[in-house]
Amino acid sequence: MTLWQGRLPDTVPAVRLFCDSFELDRRLYAADIRGSIAYARALGRAGVLTRGEVDAIVRALERIAVEFRSGAFVAAPGDEDVHTAVERRLGELVGSELAGKLHTGRSRNDQVATDLRLWLLSEIPAIRDGLLSLGEALVAVAEEHLGLIMPGYTHLRRAQPILFSHWLMSHFWRFSRDLARLEGFTVRAAVMPLGSGALAGNPFGVDREALAAELGFEGAAENSLDAVSDRDFVAEFLFIASLTGVHLSGLAEDLVLFSSPEFGFLELDERFCTGSSLMPHKANPDPLELARGRAGTLIGALCGFLSVLKGLPTGYNRDLQEDKGALFTAVDSLALMLPLFAGIVRTVRVRPERMAAALDEEMLATELADYLVEKGVPFREAHRAVGGLVRRARELGVSLGELPQEAYREAHPAFDDGVHGVRDFARAVARRRSRGGTAPERVRGQIELAKRTLRERRGDG
Amino acid sequence: MTLWQGRLPDTVPAVRLFCDSFELDRRLYAADIRGSIAYARALGRAGVLTRGEVDAIVRALERIAVEFRSGAFVAAPGDEDVHTAVERRLGELVGSELAGKLHTGRSRNDQVATDLRLWLLSEIPAIRDGLLSLGEALVAVAEEHLGLIMPGYTHLRRAQPILFSHWLMSHFWRFSRDLARLEGFTVRAAVMPLGSGALAGNPFGVDREALAAELGFEGAAENSLDAVSDRDFVAEFLFIASLTGVHLSGLAEDLVLFSSPEFGFLELDERFCTGSSLMPHKANPDPLELARGRAGTLIGALCGFLSVLKGLPTGYNRDLQEDKGALFTAVDSLALMLPLFAGIVRTVRVRPERMAAALDEEMLATELADYLVEKGVPFREAHRAVGGLVRRARELGVSLGELPQEAYREAHPAFDDGVHGVRDFARAVARRRSRGGTAPERVRGQIELAKRTLRERRGDG
Amino acid sequence: MTLWQGRLPDTVPAVRLFCDSFELDRRLYAADIRGSIAYARALGRAGVLTRGEVDAIVRALERIAVEFRSGAFVAAPGDEDVHTAVERRLGELVGSELAGKLHTGRSRNDQVATDLRLWLLSEIPAIRDGLLSLGEALVAVAEEHLGLIMPGYTHLRRAQPILFSHWLMSHFWRFSRDLARLEGFTVRAAVMPLGSGALAGNPFGVDREALAAELGFEGAAENSLDAVSDRDFVAEFLFIASLTGVHLSGLAEDLVLFSSPEFGFLELDERFCTGSSLMPHKANPDPLELARGRAGTLIGALCGFLSVLKGLPTGYNRDLQEDKGALFTAVDSLALMLPLFAGIVRTVRVRPERMAAALDEEMLATELADYLVEKGVPFREAHRAVGGLVRRARELGVSLGELPQEAYREAHPAFDDGVHGVRDFARAVARRRSRGGTAPERVRGQIELAKRTLRERRGDG
Amino acid sequence: MTLWQGRLPDTVPAVRLFCDSFELDRRLYAADIRGSIAYARALGRAGVLTRGEVDAIVRALERIAVEFRSGAFVAAPGDEDVHTAVERRLGELVGSELAGKLHTGRSRNDQVATDLRLWLLSEIPAIRDGLLSLGEALVAVAEEHLGLIMPGYTHLRRAQPILFSHWLMSHFWRFSRDLARLEGFTVRAAVMPLGSGALAGNPFGVDREALAAELGFEGAAENSLDAVSDRDFVAEFLFIASLTGVHLSGLAEDLVLFSSPEFGFLELDERFCTGSSLMPHKANPDPLELARGRAGTLIGALCGFLSVLKGLPTGYNRDLQEDKGALFTAVDSLALMLPLFAGIVRTVRVRPERMAAALDEEMLATELADYLVEKGVPFREAHRAVGGLVRRARELGVSLGELPQEAYREAHPAFDDGVHGVRDFARAVARRRSRGGTAPERVRGQIELAKRTLRERRGDG
Repeated sequence: MTLWQGRLPDTVPAVRLFCDSFELDRRLYAADIRGSIAYARALGRAGVLTRGEVDAIVRALERIAVEFRSGAFVAAPGDEDVHTAVERRLGELVGSELAGKLHTGRSRNDQVATDLRLWLLSEIPAIRDGLLSLGEALVAVAEEHLGLIMPGYTHLRRAQPILFSHWLMSHFWRFSRDLARLEGFTVRAAVMPLGSGALAGNPFGVDREALAAELGFEGAAENSLDAVSDRDFVAEFLFIASLTGVHLSGLAEDLVLFSSPEFGFLELDERFCTGSSLMPHKANPDPLELARGRAGTLIGALCGFLSVLKGLPTGYNRDLQEDKGALFTAVDSLALMLPLFAGIVRTVRVRPERMAAALDEEMLATELADYLVEKGVPFREAHRAVGGLVRRARELGVSLGELPQEAYREAHPAFDDGVHGVRDFARAVARRRSRGGTAPERVRGQIELAKRTLRERRGDG
Repeated sequence: MTLWQGRLPDTVPAVRLFCDSFELDRRLYAADIRGSIAYARALGRAGVLTRGEVDAIVRALERIAVEFRSGAFVAAPGDEDVHTAVERRLGELVGSELAGKLHTGRSRNDQVATDLRLWLLSEIPAIRDGLLSLGEALVAVAEEHLGLIMPGYTHLRRAQPILFSHWLMSHFWRFSRDLARLEGFTVRAAVMPLGSGALAGNPFGVDREALAAELGFEGAAENSLDAVSDRDFVAEFLFIASLTGVHLSGLAEDLVLFSSPEFGFLELDERFCTGSSLMPHKANPDPLELARGRAGTLIGALCGFLSVLKGLPTGYNRDLQEDKGALFTAVDSLALMLPLFAGIVRTVRVRPERMAAALDEEMLATELADYLVEKGVPFREAHRAVGGLVRRARELGVSLGELPQEAYREAHPAFDDGVHGVRDFARAVARRRSRGGTAPERVRGQIELAKRTLRERRGDG
Repeated sequence: MTLWQGRLPDTVPAVRLFCDSFELDRRLYAADIRGSIAYARALGRAGVLTRGEVDAIVRALERIAVEFRSGAFVAAPGDEDVHTAVERRLGELVGSELAGKLHTGRSRNDQVATDLRLWLLSEIPAIRDGLLSLGEALVAVAEEHLGLIMPGYTHLRRAQPILFSHWLMSHFWRFSRDLARLEGFTVRAAVMPLGSGALAGNPFGVDREALAAELGFEGAAENSLDAVSDRDFVAEFLFIASLTGVHLSGLAEDLVLFSSPEFGFLELDERFCTGSSLMPHKANPDPLELARGRAGTLIGALCGFLSVLKGLPTGYNRDLQEDKGALFTAVDSLALMLPLFAGIVRTVRVRPERMAAALDEEMLATELADYLVEKGVPFREAHRAVGGLVRRARELGVSLGELPQEAYREAHPAFDDGVHGVRDFARAVARRRSRGGTAPERVRGQIELAKRTLRERRGDG
Repeated sequence: MTLWQGRLPDTVPAVRLFCDSFELDRRLYAADIRGSIAYARALGRAGVLTRGEVDAIVRALERIAVEFRSGAFVAAPGDEDVHTAVERRLGELVGSELAGKLHTGRSRNDQVATDLRLWLLSEIPAIRDGLLSLGEALVAVAEEHLGLIMPGYTHLRRAQPILFSHWLMSHFWRFSRDLARLEGFTVRAAVMPLGSGALAGNPFGVDREALAAELGFEGAAENSLDAVSDRDFVAEFLFIASLTGVHLSGLAEDLVLFSSPEFGFLELDERFCTGSSLMPHKANPDPLELARGRAGTLIGALCGFLSVLKGLPTGYNRDLQEDKGALFTAVDSLALMLPLFAGIVRTVRVRPERMAAALDEEMLATELADYLVEKGVPFREAHRAVGGLVRRARELGVSLGELPQEAYREAHPAFDDGVHGVRDFARAVARRRSRGGTAPERVRGQIELAKRTLRERRGDG
């Protein structure tokens, strides 16, 4: 029996197969029941239901929630989605007459939109916690190893020496921005559609401000027609998830590279690696690779859903049902990946000797140019002179330090004996002490700021 | 017990939660078992297994297939994916010693890539059949109503009269192209990775040509390193599915519009409509809308998977595991949507009176211009003259036919009394008799060609 | 002469053809020069440049800005991008020795990232203004026509009567959310990379807080390695632009539909239409269609750029150069579309008689059900009864009002003579007076709130 | 003066700014003129134009082509696109009366669709040549270094030794598939829309088969309504370009990694590198990185355009104008990248000593397991035993070869003295001699097959 059996014949099986969504959306049961309980109370306050009716409905809905939670809930053939399933079960428990009153003035359109927001808002604390945990892991490792120098890269080529902690903190700030986006989003998303009916609003005098407050929303949507079809919150969450996924993919890429035998700066804890079915020696960073791939899937989910929304005419259209698959993928992925990365970061083994071995002298070329600048040579001229020195050393197959002093003088007359003092990695790091630079005191400052921020956010949670 | 327990400790639970895929990929069981049976035989031919060993393995694998098919298969905690599950169960049935020989020279890398291709190739006939059925439905309705005139649109504005059958056939040719793409793809995809090992090839003398023939592939991959990471076939199928989805979305859009009360050219069979939970009168084209939305999701799956592939280094990387979710979504969506659309098209009720009512005289403006052209007036001049007539009629609030003859003469002196003969929709349709035009004999030609093609393809299937 | 001619040979022409970007990025000239002027002053404050040197550089840079603005700037063959072009020209004006000092401690990496942020921040006010103007247009038309009733749609099927102004305001709130997102973003994006060097920070004591303040940033980036590769601001702007594009596409879709002859609720001003090259009568809503299409292009730009970012290793990588094409497309599209839509909305002609004609009685079915509810009938039962009535009327080919009273009684005994009073569109609209509903006083409230918000935002601008 | 000035007022400037496309589509001039010349002749054959008129039009169009080619063509303010520009100029040359006849029976809809196909078909040979050149480069280098052993990777971890040429050929086969897709596509795309009019076909008896033959198409579109809005060819080309871009991105990733100091297997020719503005020693693989990024942009172009197409109603809609930007990006990118990569591959310097140094003994672990298999040990048991050996060696900090013989016996009793013979990289490579394997004779076979294919394709071109 469908909701509209008075008007329409039964749909053909192919329609049900394609359109039904109970297996997908059953996880919304708690949100659906919470919304229905609040709506029953609102109908009670509006005089549509008696106090006794409200109590009976609420008790039955709470029982249904228990049935879902415990796995005891049994789906019926006609349960096309979780909302129908709950409504059907409610009819069994309180009689179809009373159950039939709960839908007074409410439409699937405002109900579904409300449920999905409630569900998402209930998932956000875990994602926020995941971001905080990953941030804490990065900061903890950065603090532990403060002072350790590694090669800094641009274009995946050794560029300048930096602190290992500076690298870790470069990832921290990315996730910190994700957190800020998530927090701004959470406020924007907490707008209640319930009480919008199918499109035109509620004619039974339901007090939507009170309803919103009871459900923990910041407020009620201002326009019923907009409210039932507004999926901005899905699109925006998908974006935040995609960008967080992109940031995880970047961290994954670095960890895969730096823990390869060729780089060797890090070793992943083997409990986060998997082996090969064929090659007995392998220890592969599968979770990192899968996360890198998942970032692609999240981008696809975002882009696909924006494409779903594009060009839709006014009012609710069933195209919007595609929101759930995309949103569930995004929430589940973040919920799994963030704690996993926190674990990987916390257990990584650092290999300072490999970092030191990778600090080749060419990475001090900028120091040589800066040396000339301090002697009054324009930077571009200094750059050119040192570029020539590097080329010469390469041609001779020697390091910059092995070039004779006369090679320096030929490269630029301003090179004097003092030049050898600049070939010092610690000095190069320490010189970059403007805000944001890799000098140890600056990196310590970053860490302190990060810890303060994390503490405050933990306090707010 | 993992495959690599000799080398590595157990993974932490978070890794298993994120990386395991049995729930997703269990549907590959038949392909996995088919591939393993063929590989066992190939190992037998290569002398690695005895005839008795081969027989025992094959019998056990066939039994496992039955267990899966009947629902009797019971997953164990360590079954991280369907391949591990089958291998574990094989060990229970034939002993782990014999089961352990089946993996000789084979890697998950070539096994998984082979299974996914086998599975996809086994799903294609149903999709092909869906495309053929939809094509047949379009042609049948086009043939039934040949001669019926409707407004043709550009920019969703009435443009020129066309045959209703011409409109139907315009959709037919889209799906015909999809079919051609699918057929070209199927040959390209039928290349076997099995026998590539993890990356370097098979050292046990397995005859891959024979193995490919047994499994129904067109041939064996030429390069083992390429073969284990080649997912072109996934990307290309996702593209074909996306474009087919886009074509379905266009047909859905037309059907939604043309069956709206405002257009009213068609009525959808109510068994393909669903009602409203709130508004008792509604009969909504939900399946069409959901299909339109699904096209967006398919686009996202394509784009997400291409993003997964982008920038991966050589050899197998675990990122590739994202192939399955995307591919399953695409296959399932087409398998559900194509027969559904065939049913909707076949049962649509045509309302000729509404089509006739929508043929307003402005749609004959081009006929007026062509009339002048036939009198020797350059087309651009004729266009301008008729444009002025249309404007004049609009200003006066009359139809073109209601304008006095002198208005025509003022618009252009070449207008004479013969002009009234051109204000005839059937004549306008019949004039367009160059190949591809909407003249009845041309549309009949299209239909004949389409029927011939469909018959041939049915024969090939 | 390249910047690195000391070290490397000339690149082959194919590299230049592919990598050079001057034609694309020349529009960044003002931002580049503004950044360089501020950096010159910062070097002056840090003691690297003398006051005289700073003055000479600033004067020359200002002159170069004038040359660009006036079109007098002449590119040289080696001008691979706008930054090189400005630097080359500076050398011509102040001598290469002095020009060569400006790059002290600065890298293309921090320079380019700073320029792009400066440029985007300078474009945002125009986009914000466009959003405000469109909002004002929607509100103005909503206010003008307050009280006018039109059919409200779900699933593109007539659902319930709503106010025309309610429909307009449903679009207003979408753009209002876009504005809120844009404002939150603008603060987040105003973080300065300059002074980060290539990756490791600035070793010449540049005061980045002062530099940030001079350039109008909210602050300086906390981590130099992050700062040079952080393109979150590009991705986030692309998302905001895509979602705004999606909202414009929805408004476009509604306007195209509602101004079609079949709907006929609106007429577009013909100055916003284009004609046909072939059909003299056509007036096509081309700008609306093109905008609807552009939304797709913007989605692609977002998704493509996220894919560019995915999986990049630490530090600057040249992949990031793809940021500009995507960002320019997004900014230009919004800058063109928003005022265009404001113009279209303001000039649209409303056709109340067509709206009235489309109000068919079935749209009052919910009123009939609510009537029963008020008599104490459970909603689901009422829904079923009215569904049957609608079916009966359809079978008889009459309207609901033409059904005999006994048909009502048969449908449900609670139907009495009072039922005829509910078949009133104005009453149906007026009943929906909960917050967000379509009742006139509620829509007036929406309009007042919107006007207040717009005024405040205009004040802030 | 617009084409429709009889009917409509001038559009407002904002419409022109947004909708005009001459700067973008002027590159279609040759295709537009070629199409117009053929159409003029077809009108001549149909008796609409006299022979003299045809000659005058053809001569003038050829002159306009020369004006474009030489840069002498001067755009006029009303030239909204290249088609209007050519038509306007034609009027100047032959008089507007005669020019006005050329549009008889032709619409912008069929004209634009034809031009874009003609243009694309004219660009494909260069792209095909680029793919062939890149393939030839890969094969040439593979042949030159046949026999050289390098580490093969999975999960970016050393896996098994392979031939360097095997790695090169793994990339070859990817591009070979791209070529096959491009060739299949070219046939499918060569279908002519011209003669479809705006939507309904051509009423002037134009012989479309002859027209198609003259323009080099395979045939004429079967349905005029489909023909004017069919952009499958754009979508499919964008897909082919995206996947080719993905393949280039994979080659780029490998080249960036393998030429890094940490891997060091290759050195890029410095003429394909660019330096740093700040760091004098840098030689960065910028073109490879930019190509890797461009793959993302191409994915976005595909996905965006599919989103443009999604849900469009029947007939031409202006949304389709978004086809050009996407298509031009794709064609230009491939045309620049393919020869660039061919150049990079051909000039790469191979460093065998670094490859040899990276062949660590763990990569022979599979050989040890296979050794046991040959002694009759089931593979899974052998895998476990060798996994334990690897772990033991790691714990002791020694290589597998340094482990005492007793460690082998403890690991598995089947290990005997013969085991040391298997620790040989050349032997490991040579054993994989099934088709597709890395054994030298198999790789030679791949190279021969590739050379034969390339030669045949060069012959066909």
